[in-house]
Amino acid sequence: MAVIDINADLGEGFGIWELGDDLALLDVITSANVACGFHAGDPLIMRRVCAAAVERGVTIGAQVSYRDLAGFGRREMDVAAPELTAEVLYQLAALDGIARAEGGRVAYVKPHGALYNRIARDAVQAAAVADAVRAYDAALPLLTLPGSAVHEVAQGLTVVAECFADRAYTPSGGLVSRREPGAVVHDADEVVRRAVRMAVDGTVVAADGTEVPLKARSICVHGDTPGAVALAQAVRSALSGAGVALEPFA
Amino acid sequence: MAVIDINADLGEGFGIWELGDDLALLDVITSANVACGFHAGDPLIMRRVCAAAVERGVTIGAQVSYRDLAGFGRREMDVAAPELTAEVLYQLAALDGIARAEGGRVAYVKPHGALYNRIARDAVQAAAVADAVRAYDAALPLLTLPGSAVHEVAQGLTVVAECFADRAYTPSGGLVSRREPGAVVHDADEVVRRAVRMAVDGTVVAADGTEVPLKARSICVHGDTPGAVALAQAVRSALSGAGVALEPFA
Amino acid sequence: MAVIDINADLGEGFGIWELGDDLALLDVITSANVACGFHAGDPLIMRRVCAAAVERGVTIGAQVSYRDLAGFGRREMDVAAPELTAEVLYQLAALDGIARAEGGRVAYVKPHGALYNRIARDAVQAAAVADAVRAYDAALPLLTLPGSAVHEVAQGLTVVAECFADRAYTPSGGLVSRREPGAVVHDADEVVRRAVRMAVDGTVVAADGTEVPLKARSICVHGDTPGAVALAQAVRSALSGAGVALEPFA
Amino acid sequence: MAVIDINADLGEGFGIWELGDDLALLDVITSANVACGFHAGDPLIMRRVCAAAVERGVTIGAQVSYRDLAGFGRREMDVAAPELTAEVLYQLAALDGIARAEGGRVAYVKPHGALYNRIARDAVQAAAVADAVRAYDAALPLLTLPGSAVHEVAQGLTVVAECFADRAYTPSGGLVSRREPGAVVHDADEVVRRAVRMAVDGTVVAADGTEVPLKARSICVHGDTPGAVALAQAVRSALSGAGVALEPFA
Repeated sequence: MAVIDINADLGEGFGIWELGDDLALLDVITSANVACGFHAGDPLIMRRVCAAAVERGVTIGAQVSYRDLAGFGRREMDVAAPELTAEVLYQLAALDGIARAEGGRVAYVKPHGALYNRIARDAVQAAAVADAVRAYDAALPLLTLPGSAVHEVAQGLTVVAECFADRAYTPSGGLVSRREPGAVVHDADEVVRRAVRMAVDGTVVAADGTEVPLKARSICVHGDTPGAVALAQAVRSALSGAGVALEPFA
Repeated sequence: MAVIDINADLGEGFGIWELGDDLALLDVITSANVACGFHAGDPLIMRRVCAAAVERGVTIGAQVSYRDLAGFGRREMDVAAPELTAEVLYQLAALDGIARAEGGRVAYVKPHGALYNRIARDAVQAAAVADAVRAYDAALPLLTLPGSAVHEVAQGLTVVAECFADRAYTPSGGLVSRREPGAVVHDADEVVRRAVRMAVDGTVVAADGTEVPLKARSICVHGDTPGAVALAQAVRSALSGAGVALEPFA
Repeated sequence: MAVIDINADLGEGFGIWELGDDLALLDVITSANVACGFHAGDPLIMRRVCAAAVERGVTIGAQVSYRDLAGFGRREMDVAAPELTAEVLYQLAALDGIARAEGGRVAYVKPHGALYNRIARDAVQAAAVADAVRAYDAALPLLTLPGSAVHEVAQGLTVVAECFADRAYTPSGGLVSRREPGAVVHDADEVVRRAVRMAVDGTVVAADGTEVPLKARSICVHGDTPGAVALAQAVRSALSGAGVALEPFA
Repeated sequence: MAVIDINADLGEGFGIWELGDDLALLDVITSANVACGFHAGDPLIMRRVCAAAVERGVTIGAQVSYRDLAGFGRREMDVAAPELTAEVLYQLAALDGIARAEGGRVAYVKPHGALYNRIARDAVQAAAVADAVRAYDAALPLLTLPGSAVHEVAQGLTVVAECFADRAYTPSGGLVSRREPGAVVHDADEVVRRAVRMAVDGTVVAADGTEVPLKARSICVHGDTPGAVALAQAVRSALSGAGVALEPFA
C-alpha cells in the first residue's frame, strides 16, 4: 500500500499581516512547515500555529530561511557558511522551544524559498544547513528535492524527498523553472491526477511527455493563493480515494 | 562563608559591530547574560559566546529583551502580554539550542534593559516574562532586582536577586535613577569596597548615608565602557581576597 | 458651503504582505496617508501608491511612525526626542523623494498609531515630531486630533484637525478609548449620518448624548476591514449629496 | 595640475554601535559616503554626520546598499530591479532630506559593498541603481569602479571613477579579489606612494609588475581599521605635498 505525507507552509504572516489559511490547511496536511521568523512568522504566530498543529496531530517542521523579511526569503543571499549554520540553528531551536511549550516538537527541517533552491545546487550552503541540523539533533530529517546537493553533504542525516503536484518536471526529474512557461500546472483535475500518480506509481509525466520516476515520501501543497486550500483538499481526497495512506514521514 | 555570583552582559555586538570585551569578561564572571538577538547578538555571535563560556565553565543565561535593535532594548515598549511571552520564549529557546550545540545549556533568564526595568514595576509584563520561562522550563531561575514586581507574579519560579556595585541605592534599597546625579559610582576603589560589603555583610550605604540591607546572590558588573573590565577584575580579586566564594547561582 | 477632506491610511503592506485595498480607497479619498517603511510600507509599495495617487489627483501625506514593523507602530515607545526627530525626518524625506519621482510631492504629515496617540498628550515627543517637519519643510501641515499636545508645540507649523466618523466621542471632544465598550460605531447608516453632521454642522453627539462642537477640516476613513471601503464610499456619497465640497486641505 | 577627491565611508554605526572615527576622517576627506540606514547608519547618526560634514565643507554622497544590516551589506542579494530601484531611491531621498535639514545636500551616489561589486558586472542591477538616481536627480554623479557595468547603462548619468590606494590591481585595471593573497597593500609607505602615483601619473603598478593606466577622479580611503585614519592622513599630506589639488568631484 502506498504511503505519502502532505506538507504545506504555515505561519507565514508577520505582525498584523496574514498569509494563507493556516487552520484550513491543518485539516488537509500531515506535516506543517512552520516559518521561524526569518522570512515570515513572529513568535506569537509560531506559538499559535504550533498549538493548532499539536491539537490536530499534525507533525511540525522548521521552515528555516535566509534572514529576509522584506523579500520573504525568496532572494538568494551569499551568506557565509558559519553564519548560515548559526542562523538555521537559531531558527530551529526557537521553533522547537515554542513547539515543546505547546506539547509538540520539531520533527523535521525544510529550508524555505531561495535557501531551498540554493542548497539544491550549492554544496557549501547545503553543508552549512546540514551542520545546523546535526548540531541541534542529528535525528531530524531534512525535507528537500530529490537530487538536491543536500543529499551529498548530509553525512548521516536523513534526507527525505518531496514532490510537487502542481509543478512541471523536466525529463531528468527536476522542476521546470518558474521563469519558463508551463512551470505551474493550473488545471485542478490535472493537479489531482498527478498527485495520485506520484503517490501510487512514483512517476510523473515530464514537460516533454516522457514518464519520469519520482521517488518522494511527501507531496507539497500550497495555501496562499485563491483556491489553493480547495485544491489541497481535492488532492487529499483523491489520495485517500486511491487507497494511499496519508502519514507523516517524521 | 559568603557566596556570590558575578554576572555580566555578553554577546552584545551585532553583525560587523562589536561591543565590550567578551573574552576578557569570561575570565572574571561566573554567569554570562548572553544577548539573544532582539536587542543585540546575532546567531553567530551567540554561538561563539556560548562556546567560549562552555570552554571556561561559565554559566549561561538568556538575556531576553524587547525587539529593538535600533534602541538596544533600552526603550520601554507597550507590548501586549501574549506577544511578550512568545517573544521571550522564542529568544530563550533559540539561545538554549545554540548553547546545547556547544555542550552547554541556558541555566537562567535575565531580562535586559528597558524590559528589566519595566517588569520591576509592571506586573502584567512581569507575568508575561514569567509565563515564558515557565512554559519553557519552570526550573530556570529569573535574575532580577530585589523588590521587583516579578517576585509577586513568579508563581513557583525561582527568582534570584542581584545587586550593582557601581550604582547608588535609595534608602529603601532601590536603585537611584540614572537621570539623577550620583546614580553611578565612578571611583574604582569605592566600587570595589561596596562590592565586598554587599557580598560579605549584605548591606550597602545608600545615597543618604544610611546603611541598607541588600540580599543578593549575584553581583552585576559591566564590560562595555573603558576601564570596565579592569574594574570587574578588581571586584573579583577583592571578593576572593575577602574570602567570598565565587559560585554561579544556577 | 461646507468643505472637508477625506483621508485614509494607504500603502500599509510590507514585502509579500498586503493590507487594505489601496486602489479602491484612492477613488474615495482626497488625501492619502502613505506609510513610510517604519510600521509598514516598503520602498516599492510606497512608489506604487504614490504613482496611483498622483494619477488620480489624490494629495499625498507622510504617515510617519515609530520604528516597529512587528507591532505595526501600535506600541508606544520611549524614544528620545533627538532620535524621534531624526526618524520622522528620515521617513518624511524618503517618501517625498519617492513622491517627487512619480510627479507628486508630500503635502502634509500624519503620525501613525501609537505615535499619533502619544503626541496628543506627550509634549516632548510632539515637539520632536514638529521639529522634524519644521526641519524638512515648515510649510507642511500636521494632521492630528483637535486638542492634541502638538498644537501647543507646533511653533508656527500649521496643524490641521481631523475627526473620525466611526468613533465615539467624549463630552469634551476626545475619542472614547478603544478599550471601552462602544468606542467604535459599527452601524453603517449611523457612521454616514455622523460624518455628514461633522462636516455640515461641525458637531458630534458624544457618548453621553450631549452635542459637542468638533471643528475638523478632514475626516478619517479606514480601508483595512471587511466592508470598510464600501462604508468609505457611502460616507463620500452622503457628503457630496449633502452639498459638502470634498477638497484636500493641503 | 593634478586634481583629486578623497572619499571615505562614514556614518556606519547603528544605534549603540559605532564604527570608525567619522570626525577624524572628515578632516582628511573631501567627499563623505554617508550610510543611509540599509547596511548601517540610523537617522540620528545620518543627521550628525551630515551636520559635521556641512560644518567642515565636506561634500556628502549617498552610500546606498542592499537591505542587510545583519550582513553590513556585504552579501550579494538577488533583488529584482523594480525593488532595487525603489530601495535606492528611498535611501537617497532620506539622506538628501536629512542633509538639507543640516544645510547641505546629497551631491553624488556611491553604492556600498556587495551592491558596488554586483553592479560592476550585473547590468540589470546596475541599470536599476541608475534608474533610481535618474528618478531622483539626473544631475547626481555615480561614484564607482572604472570599467563597471554601470558605465554602460548610465544613459546620460555622470559616472565618476575612483581608485583604491591600498588595493592590488590586475593587469587589466581591475581589483585583485580580496580572496587572493596580496589583495590589500598593508605597507603604509607603499600605500602613500601608490596614491600619489595614481593622482599625479594616473597609473598603478599591477600585481604582476606591469604599469597600468588608471583614470580616477577620486581616491577611496578607509577609516574602520586600526591605523586607518593615520594612513588616510598620510595619503592626504603626500598628495598635497606632491602638488595635487584636493577637490570634491561633485
